[in-house]
Amino acid sequence: MKAIVQTDPQERRSLELREVEVPKLRSGEVLVKVQAAGVNRGDILQTMGAYPPPPGASEILGLEAAGTIADAGDTNWEVGTEVGCLLAGGGYAEYVAVPQGQLLPVPEGFSVEETAAVVEVGCTVWSNLGIEAGLHEGQRILIHGGGGGVGTFAIQVAKALGAEVAVTAGSQEKLDRCRELGADILINYKEHDFVEELKGSCDVILDIIGAKYLEKNMKCLAKDGKLIIIGMQGGTKAEINLGAMLPKRLTIQGTTLRARDLEDKAQIVAGTVENVWPMLEDGRVKHALHATYPLADAAQAHTALDSGEVTGTLVLTV
Amino acid sequence: MKAIVQTDPQERRSLELREVEVPKLRSGEVLVKVQAAGVNRGDILQTMGAYPPPPGASEILGLEAAGTIADAGDTNWEVGTEVGCLLAGGGYAEYVAVPQGQLLPVPEGFSVEETAAVVEVGCTVWSNLGIEAGLHEGQRILIHGGGGGVGTFAIQVAKALGAEVAVTAGSQEKLDRCRELGADILINYKEHDFVEELKGSCDVILDIIGAKYLEKNMKCLAKDGKLIIIGMQGGTKAEINLGAMLPKRLTIQGTTLRARDLEDKAQIVAGTVENVWPMLEDGRVKHALHATYPLADAAQAHTALDSGEVTGTLVLTV
Repeated sequence: MKAIVQTDPQERRSLELREVEVPKLRSGEVLVKVQAAGVNRGDILQTMGAYPPPPGASEILGLEAAGTIADAGDTNWEVGTEVGCLLAGGGYAEYVAVPQGQLLPVPEGFSVEETAAVVEVGCTVWSNLGIEAGLHEGQRILIHGGGGGVGTFAIQVAKALGAEVAVTAGSQEKLDRCRELGADILINYKEHDFVEELKGSCDVILDIIGAKYLEKNMKCLAKDGKLIIIGMQGGTKAEINLGAMLPKRLTIQGTTLRARDLEDKAQIVAGTVENVWPMLEDGRVKHALHATYPLADAAQAHTALDSGEVTGTLVLTV
Repeated sequence: MKAIVQTDPQERRSLELREVEVPKLRSGEVLVKVQAAGVNRGDILQTMGAYPPPPGASEILGLEAAGTIADAGDTNWEVGTEVGCLLAGGGYAEYVAVPQGQLLPVPEGFSVEETAAVVEVGCTVWSNLGIEAGLHEGQRILIHGGGGGVGTFAIQVAKALGAEVAVTAGSQEKLDRCRELGADILINYKEHDFVEELKGSCDVILDIIGAKYLEKNMKCLAKDGKLIIIGMQGGTKAEINLGAMLPKRLTIQGTTLRARDLEDKAQIVAGTVENVWPMLEDGRVKHALHATYPLADAAQAHTALDSGEVTGTLVLTV
C-alpha cells in the first residue's frame, strides 16, 4: 500500500508517499481502507520528534481517519461498513489496522471526510469535559484558546451540557467566533487579565497553555475546581502554591489521549458516540472541515496548519 | 454549659473551661451531650490562628466527639441515642450542635470514648482513599508519615481494600509499627531515597509533606496516578514540571475535610459508616485511644500531642 513516510527525521516536511507493507491485524483489530485522514497538531509534533507513537503503535502519522472496513479480522464487524477511527497512529495511509473499540459510526448527515475531521477532537473534548471533569448544568468552565480547534469544539459541547462558558483568545475576530458558538464570557488575554474577571468562579478549566497560566488558573478555580491541562504552549515548569490548593480542594490533572490503553480508549469512544455524536447530528455542535488535500500533499497540509490560518480541520483524502 | 475557651488569641495554651451559651439548633441539626471529644492537630493549628473555623461554624475547638442525643430538633433521631459526630468545630464542650448527616453510630464493641477518637481519622482516610482515589485491589499506594495518626489508619484501610502499601517514616520503630499494621514496603526516608525504590510504581500517594516532596512524588506515580495532598509539613511552594504530568496523565489534588459543605460531609460520613465501620468492628482496622484527659485539661492534652510521643488519639472526657 501507499503511505506517507518521513524520509529525513531532521526535516519535518520531508513527507513522501512511499510503498510500505499493509499492516497485519492483531486479535480484535479490523483493517480499514482509508478514504480520509484528519491532520492534527500532534502529527506535526511527531515530525519534529516531540510526540513519538506509543509502544506498539504504527510509526506512520495520522491520529484519526475514516473509510470502509476491508477486513474484519476476528471481529463481528461487516466488511464494507463505513467507519470513523480513533488511531494511535497510521492514518496517513491507504490502510490502517484499528482496534474495534476505536471504531465510530459516521454521524447521520456527515460525509466520510467530515467524519475523519471530527473523531480526534470529539474524543479529546469528551474525555476531558465529559469523563474527567464531569461537566454539568450550572457549572462554569473556562476554555483557553477558545478560537482553536479544540476550543471551538469544547465551547459547543460545554454549552450543550448546560454549562456557562468563559473563553480567552488573542483577537476580537476569534472572540466573535467564540460568541457565535455560544461562549458567554469573552476575554481578550492581550487586553485584559482573565483572573480579574473570573477569580474564584470556575468549576473547570480546559487549558492548553501550561506553566505560564498555572498560578492564574488556580486563582480562577472555585471550590472543588479542576484544572485540566491538555497542552503546554506556555511552557512546562512553573512554581505552584500548594497552600492555595487545600482550602479550595483543587485538582490539577494532565491528560493525553494517544497514550491511553485500549480499554480506556474504547470507553472514551463509546462515551463520545453516545454523547457527542447526537450533538453533531442535531446541529448543537458544528465542526468545519477547513480544506482537503490529496494524501501525497501531506507536507503542504502541515504547512497550512502551522500558518495559524486554519479555522477547522484539514483532511487528507486517499 | 461549660466549654473550653481560648482566653488569649496570642497564647495557644490559654485554654480554660468557661461558661458559654448552649448552641442553638438550626434545621436538620441535633444537640449532642458530649461525653468525649477527640483532640486533633487541627485543633492545635486553630489555637495558633492557622486553621480558622469555616464561616458559620462554632468558634469552639473540637473536630470530633461522641455522646448522646439530648435534643433531636426537627429531625427523626431519638433522644438518648449514642452517636459519634464529625464536627466543623465545637467538640470541646458539654453540648454541641451537629447536622444530622454528620452523626455516626457507635461501632459494635466500641466505647463512647473510643468512638470520639475514630470519627475524624476514619472520615479523613475514607474521603481520600475511598472517595477521591477510589483505591482498589491490585493498586499500590504510598503513604507518607506511615507512623502518624492518619498514616497508621490509612495503612490498615488500604490493606483492607486489597492494595499494596508502601510507607515512609523516620525511624525503625515507626516502620516496625507500620509492618505490624500490614505495610508491605517500608522506607526510612532518613536513610533511603523513596524515589529509587518506588519510581513510576504508585497508583495513589497520600501525602502530608507538600512542597518538599512534590517532584519526588510525581516521579513515584504510575500512569493515571493520583497524588493527594492533605498536609504541607514540608512547605507550600514548589516548582512543578507539568511536562511530566501529561504523558502519565497524573492528577494532583489538595483536600481538606473541615471546609466541605453539608452535602459532601454527609456523603463522606455515610461512606465511612458503610465501609470503614465494618473494618473497625471485625478488627481489620485497629485504632488506639492513647489517653484520656478531663475536658478542663485541654491545654495539657495539646502539649502531649505536640510532643510527638502520642501513638493513637487523645480524648477529652466531659
